[in-house]
Amino acid sequence: MSDHITVAVDGMGGDSAPEVVIGGIETTCRADSKVKFLLFGNKEKIGPLLSRSHYAQELCELIHTDEEVTNDDKPTFALRNRTKSSMRLAIDAVKEHKADAVISAGNTGALMAMATIVLKTLPGISRPAIASSFPTQAGDSVMLDLGANVECDSNNLVQFAVMGEVYARNELGLSQPSVGILNVGVEGLKGNDSVRDAAAILKNSNLPLEFYGFIEGDDIGKGTVDVIVTDGFTGNIALKTAEGTAQMIAYFLKDALKSSILSKAGALLARPAIEKVRSHFDPRRYNGALLLGLNGICVKSHGGTDEVGFAHAIQVGVNLVRRDLNDLIKEDIASVMIEPSQSIIE
Amino acid sequence: MSDHITVAVDGMGGDSAPEVVIGGIETTCRADSKVKFLLFGNKEKIGPLLSRSHYAQELCELIHTDEEVTNDDKPTFALRNRTKSSMRLAIDAVKEHKADAVISAGNTGALMAMATIVLKTLPGISRPAIASSFPTQAGDSVMLDLGANVECDSNNLVQFAVMGEVYARNELGLSQPSVGILNVGVEGLKGNDSVRDAAAILKNSNLPLEFYGFIEGDDIGKGTVDVIVTDGFTGNIALKTAEGTAQMIAYFLKDALKSSILSKAGALLARPAIEKVRSHFDPRRYNGALLLGLNGICVKSHGGTDEVGFAHAIQVGVNLVRRDLNDLIKEDIASVMIEPSQSIIE
Repeated sequence: MSDHITVAVDGMGGDSAPEVVIGGIETTCRADSKVKFLLFGNKEKIGPLLSRSHYAQELCELIHTDEEVTNDDKPTFALRNRTKSSMRLAIDAVKEHKADAVISAGNTGALMAMATIVLKTLPGISRPAIASSFPTQAGDSVMLDLGANVECDSNNLVQFAVMGEVYARNELGLSQPSVGILNVGVEGLKGNDSVRDAAAILKNSNLPLEFYGFIEGDDIGKGTVDVIVTDGFTGNIALKTAEGTAQMIAYFLKDALKSSILSKAGALLARPAIEKVRSHFDPRRYNGALLLGLNGICVKSHGGTDEVGFAHAIQVGVNLVRRDLNDLIKEDIASVMIEPSQSIIE
Repeated sequence: MSDHITVAVDGMGGDSAPEVVIGGIETTCRADSKVKFLLFGNKEKIGPLLSRSHYAQELCELIHTDEEVTNDDKPTFALRNRTKSSMRLAIDAVKEHKADAVISAGNTGALMAMATIVLKTLPGISRPAIASSFPTQAGDSVMLDLGANVECDSNNLVQFAVMGEVYARNELGLSQPSVGILNVGVEGLKGNDSVRDAAAILKNSNLPLEFYGFIEGDDIGKGTVDVIVTDGFTGNIALKTAEGTAQMIAYFLKDALKSSILSKAGALLARPAIEKVRSHFDPRRYNGALLLGLNGICVKSHGGTDEVGFAHAIQVGVNLVRRDLNDLIKEDIASVMIEPSQSIIE
C-alpha cells in the first residue's frame, strides 16, 4: 500500500447531503493531501459544489449515479433495489479494492446490510458490530455493539471484545485496554448466559487486554473501562439514554440560569467554563461510528452532522486504514479461536 | 380497612441501618399520625434509637430478631437460611395481614426473592417487576422493569405496561398515561419478538392508557411517555446509565466552574439557580422503588439513602396502600386477559 489513501464517499447520504459531504471532504483535503476521494452521487447536484471547493476539486473523482438510498428504505429493500445507489457503489469500490474505506451519512440499516453482504465479515467474525468512542469522566471509551445485532450470543460478545480492544489500542492509543461487559450487576452470577459465558472465555484468554469483568450502567459515564462490550439492543439504548440525559440536564441548566438577573450575570461570567464543558461533549468530535468486523473499513457518519463532524468521520476511517486495523483484528481473533456463532450458520 | 395504615419495616436493611430507618420513620410519624409501624430488628441496636425518637416511639411496635440479611447473601441463600431475618419477618407480616406494606433498604435480590415466594404474584401476573419514577424534561415518568427479570417475553412486557399505567394513574396522578416500549428504533419492525408482540397486544387493548408505540433511549430524558416498559436487563442498564451520565456532567461542570476566578464568581452568583436544578434531580425525592405485581405493597429503598430518602420510600408505600393499587392492577390485568407466561409454567 502506498501512503496515499483512497476513501469512497456516499455523496447523497445524510440530512444535508451533498453540501455537508463536500464541505467535510474540503476540510479534510485542506489538512491532508494524501487522502483521495471517489465521490458517488448525482453530478448535477454535486458538480457545482465541487467546482467551488478548491482542494476537494483536486482530490475528488466524481462518479455519477441517479440512484440513492432514502431514509425510509428498509434494509432488505435497499439491498435488492438500490444496487446502483451512491451508497452501494461506494461500498462496491472497497470490495473491488478501488478504495481503502467507505464513508456514508445515510440510512444506517441499509449501510449495515449492504456492507455486510458486499464486503463480508473477517475470518473468525460471525457478525459485524457498530462501535463508537464517546467522552467519560476518565477520558474516551469505546462501546460496541451499538445496534447492529439485536440478539447476541457469547461468541458474538467475545468477538466484539476483540474488535473493541484492537480499536482502542489503535484509535485511543492504549497499549492494553481494559474491557468490561455491560451487565445488571458486577457479581459473576448476574445477567444472562451470553454475558456469563463471554466473561468466562475472556477471563482465560491471552488477548492484549485487561479483562475487568462486568460493569454496570453507571460505569459508562465514570469511564471504568476503555472498552464496553454489549449486545446491540442494550448498547443502542444505553448510548441514546446517555445522550438524552445530557440534553435534559442542559435544558434544565439553561432554564435555571435564565431565571433571575443574578443567575444570568453568573452564567455570563462562567460562560467560557461552560463552553469548555460543552465543547468537550461536542458530538461532532465523536462523529464516525465504525462498522467493525468487515473486510474493509466502513464508517457511518451521523445523518445530521455538519462539515466539521463529517470531516471527523472521514478522519476516523483514514486513521484505521493507516493502522491496518483489520489485519490486527484477524491476528487477535485467531488467538481466541472461537467457533462461528450458531446463529449465523442456521 | 380503617384509615390507619400499618407498615412493616426491615429495621436492619441499608448501609446506615438502623439509624436511617428510625430517622425515616420519625420523619414520617411527625407528619402523618395515621401510619403505624411494625419494626423488625435487633432490639439492642434499635431500642436506644427509638427511645430518643419522640414520635416513632409512640407509633412503632418493635419486634426483636437477631437475624439479618447481609448484602453478600445470594437470593437463594437468603430464601433458605434467613427465615427469621428482619427482612423476612417484615414480609411475613404483610402475608399474615398484620401490615399493609413492607419497606426495606436491604439486599435487593433477597428482597425480591423472598417477597415473590412469600407474597406470590397477583392473579394474571407471571412475574413481579421493579418500578421507579424519575425526573424528565416533561415531568416525572415511571420505568419498569428495572432489574427483577433479566429476560422477558411479550406477556411479561404487557403485564408491566398494565402495572405501570395503574401506578402512573395513581402515583403520578394522570388519568390516561402514555405508555411506550423501549426499543432500538421507532419503526414497527425494529427490535426483537418480545417488544414487537407486546406492541401488537397493547395497540389493540382497551386499557385506560394511550399506547405510544416504541420509544428510543433518548426519549427517556425527553419524557416522551409517562410509562416506559422494558425488560429488566435493559431497564436496569438504562436507569444506571442515566444516573452515571448525570454524575459525569456534574463532575465536568464543577471542575470547569473552579477553573478561573471569573468562573468561580459566576458560579457563586448562579448558585441558587444551580441548586434548584440539583434539588430537582435529588435522588432522595425519587427514592422508593416498587416491587409491583405482588399480593402486597413492597417498597425497596436505596441502601445508601438518608432519613429524608427513607421517609420518601415509606410515603410511596403508604400512598399506594391508600389508593388500593393492587385492586386496580387486578381489574386492568383481567381486561387484557393474558395467558400466563410460558417461562413461569416450565
